[in-house]
Amino acid sequence: MSDDCIFCRIVEGKIPSCKVCQDELTLAFLDIGPLSEGHCLLIPRQHYARLDECPAATLAALGRNLGPLARAVVDVVGAEGYNVLNNNDRCAGQLVEHIHFHIIPRNPGDGVFTQWPAGEYPEGRIEQLAENIKKLL
Amino acid sequence: MSDDCIFCRIVEGKIPSCKVCQDELTLAFLDIGPLSEGHCLLIPRQHYARLDECPAATLAALGRNLGPLARAVVDVVGAEGYNVLNNNDRCAGQLVEHIHFHIIPRNPGDGVFTQWPAGEYPEGRIEQLAENIKKLL
Repeated sequence: MSDDCIFCRIVEGKIPSCKVCQDELTLAFLDIGPLSEGHCLLIPRQHYARLDECPAATLAALGRNLGPLARAVVDVVGAEGYNVLNNNDRCAGQLVEHIHFHIIPRNPGDGVFTQWPAGEYPEGRIEQLAENIKKLL
Repeated sequence: MSDDCIFCRIVEGKIPSCKVCQDELTLAFLDIGPLSEGHCLLIPRQHYARLDECPAATLAALGRNLGPLARAVVDVVGAEGYNVLNNNDRCAGQLVEHIHFHIIPRNPGDGVFTQWPAGEYPEGRIEQLAENIKKLL
């Protein structure tokens, strides 16, 4: 636990939150600054800043809970779809340095996210990247 | 497997891809239309359109693999951060109807995603939503 982490304080019950589910490793609650109605956060109880620092059992628990949580959220708000988003590092939009998955209900034309600036690789680059990543796994 | 699903055909090896890791339940490969260098996709081998349709064991495997895969990708491309993004339904930006987690390396000022249109709830609404979601979990 980290005393200056708002999500650790939510886990400990020192800051109020609208919780929706919890188990031994994770907790989910509604985001108070929602991108759309029903926007939830799923977090590990333990403090890890980034997803790549999280132990396998906690990663598995987060993954396992995302599906049922997303279904319950979109059922309640009547959304057609949803984004699951986890930002790591401030440059990626992470404001609280405690792992969190956003579940963001979506509907056609809601304008929540519209950017998708896809690019292309120069010849040979994608194969080279794949080889380099494989070596680390 | 679905014959008209491009990701099922990648799993079967009928369409070439730059794979980076795989296990019994999942497969990861580089996105050919990258939002940034090293942009990868992690998918279940079995065909499920949306995350909330995915069985618990496969959800857990996806979660467990996200951390190590993200670390390898950002190490190789030297990125400061990353987004993990899973879109469900066309209205949420899902183009291929086979579950996929994007791992998108990020750096300060890269402009990949800049939108965060946060709103506020009217009084009492967030508590009401939490109660309704809890009932479904």
